[in-house]
Amino acid sequence: MNPKIQWLRNKISSLDLQGIIISNPINIKYLTGIDAEGVLLITRKENIYITDGRYIEYVHSTLTLFDEIIVYDVKDVSADDYENFFMFCENVGFEENYVTYANYKELVRKYKINNLVETEYIIEKQRMIKDEEELENLKIACEITDNCFSYIISYIKPGMTEKQIADEIEEYYKQRAEGLSFPTIVASGENSSKPHAVPSERKIQKEDIITIDMGCKYKGYCSDMTRTIFVGKIPDEMKKVYDIVLRNQNKTLEEYKDGAIIRQLTKMVINDFQLCNYDLVHSLGHGVGLEIHEPPFINYKTEAPLKENMVVTSEPGIYIPGKFGVRIEDTVQITKFGCKQLTNSDKNYVVI
Amino acid sequence: MNPKIQWLRNKISSLDLQGIIISNPINIKYLTGIDAEGVLLITRKENIYITDGRYIEYVHSTLTLFDEIIVYDVKDVSADDYENFFMFCENVGFEENYVTYANYKELVRKYKINNLVETEYIIEKQRMIKDEEELENLKIACEITDNCFSYIISYIKPGMTEKQIADEIEEYYKQRAEGLSFPTIVASGENSSKPHAVPSERKIQKEDIITIDMGCKYKGYCSDMTRTIFVGKIPDEMKKVYDIVLRNQNKTLEEYKDGAIIRQLTKMVINDFQLCNYDLVHSLGHGVGLEIHEPPFINYKTEAPLKENMVVTSEPGIYIPGKFGVRIEDTVQITKFGCKQLTNSDKNYVVI
Repeated sequence: MNPKIQWLRNKISSLDLQGIIISNPINIKYLTGIDAEGVLLITRKENIYITDGRYIEYVHSTLTLFDEIIVYDVKDVSADDYENFFMFCENVGFEENYVTYANYKELVRKYKINNLVETEYIIEKQRMIKDEEELENLKIACEITDNCFSYIISYIKPGMTEKQIADEIEEYYKQRAEGLSFPTIVASGENSSKPHAVPSERKIQKEDIITIDMGCKYKGYCSDMTRTIFVGKIPDEMKKVYDIVLRNQNKTLEEYKDGAIIRQLTKMVINDFQLCNYDLVHSLGHGVGLEIHEPPFINYKTEAPLKENMVVTSEPGIYIPGKFGVRIEDTVQITKFGCKQLTNSDKNYVVI
Repeated sequence: MNPKIQWLRNKISSLDLQGIIISNPINIKYLTGIDAEGVLLITRKENIYITDGRYIEYVHSTLTLFDEIIVYDVKDVSADDYENFFMFCENVGFEENYVTYANYKELVRKYKINNLVETEYIIEKQRMIKDEEELENLKIACEITDNCFSYIISYIKPGMTEKQIADEIEEYYKQRAEGLSFPTIVASGENSSKPHAVPSERKIQKEDIITIDMGCKYKGYCSDMTRTIFVGKIPDEMKKVYDIVLRNQNKTLEEYKDGAIIRQLTKMVINDFQLCNYDLVHSLGHGVGLEIHEPPFINYKTEAPLKENMVVTSEPGIYIPGKFGVRIEDTVQITKFGCKQLTNSDKNYVVI
């Protein structure tokens, strides 16, 4: 049997569940490699994937006998079949953070399960710790992003629009990876004061500041990096803010390691920002994997510690409304005694 | 007040709801124009949008006084505030088809609402009927798609890969629209037998069949069109299948009109396919608007009728596993006595 499904079987057994219904397509992709629409049922004896006519052929071509997954076309599954899947099961898990309230009521009706049990991100928690193959894919996605950044800083010239630069990044990623892991941000001048700015027709000017937030996908795995760069020269006010952001980003990377408490890491940045009369208006970071944003979420509400082989970002930013903003972000792998940067582009003042 | 929010206030009042919590970002965009992350509360006296630091500036720049929407930063909203929003409200609606089971429990806990009421796609149902501005945007998105198709059939040459053709379509849309409304499908030869094929490195060959499923976005509104074309010549077996698909697609468009029963329209195609020993393995069509797939879903399970100013697709397809497939799809506007095609590309045999 596929080792990830074997892990899940052991895990649910330890939770006194006799089965589980997996609905989140990212979790299904993680467990089976299938990238389609459908539902995965782990029953007492079988692993079952139910999909529809659009995907049947693809699913059969993805799975091997070794996976031990039985595939059904949803139109061949009767009301009786649904009731039989979890017959004699006392407790069956479901994904309460993915399934809508309406779906939940539908599951209860259709499967006639005695006790549908919340499983509290059971698979997402496992996904936080990356195995060797996943780490290799993430590393390559980050390398491509470093190379793209090198290329793009030689490409940018005053007079180009933000959109044009974002398009060039997308083109680069399409040639060398599976495209973008999220819509690229290229925010120049006053636009950089919006953390989630959309690339506009604004033209790059002399003495501009430009924040570029970019990432690609490799074999399904994402990279994420932000750099703030300057055109021509660095005005003193921007330099001051840049130094505060960079100091905090470096400091977090020094502190990131197995066992470091996420809440405390975030508080450290919040406090230093406040001493300088600024606020941290968004999270400090997030996990990166099959999704660009996935657990652990690095903010002051997360009590949990970082763990070895998590892959996360550190991305402090300061935004001065209507004026400018600075954000610096890397994707890193947590190790036993520190962290290993997966993105490695220059963080000293980059002036083009 | 913004007329769409005024409509919603009247609507919930008629349902004996004293408020509603809107969580689905597409519905929030429809009602307010805001394209961000947050929640919209319609309370007894106020319209409230709660977002976070990343979006505050953008939201303020999007709304006008006329909208009458109060914006909060989530970090400034206290536990008491949440309890006060719907104080003295007996029934408050929520979106049971968007909100997860875990979110639902959180809403109950946070807002302390007596009776959280399922609202059964209240806003999606309104979104099905397009107003003039929406129709204009959809029309333009479809025109761009027709133009892109004209361009792409002159571009395709044997030896090009499916990916290369899909990239060219994306590039076209990026120049002239807001990019893709969904990932383009270019499926050639035996790949066309997969309804949801992903563009591959397969090279177009002489005497190939190619299915192209494409669409773009204009001011947030989507277009959707599929054509199946031929390289060099049309083998008899493919011609036979093409004729069956086209006959059914034409027939449905003749029958599409205000009052036509969706279930019956679908049955008509299923029956004709079965007479020819084929199956309709996916839906006959779907609504198109801010989302590429939205209600009404056109399949044999939908009892509802089509209505004037719905915008929907008709996309029958036949797929012969391992050999080839044919799908033909248009986006159309339902009118009082028929339908108006918004996509108008040639459906006669296109041989390149």
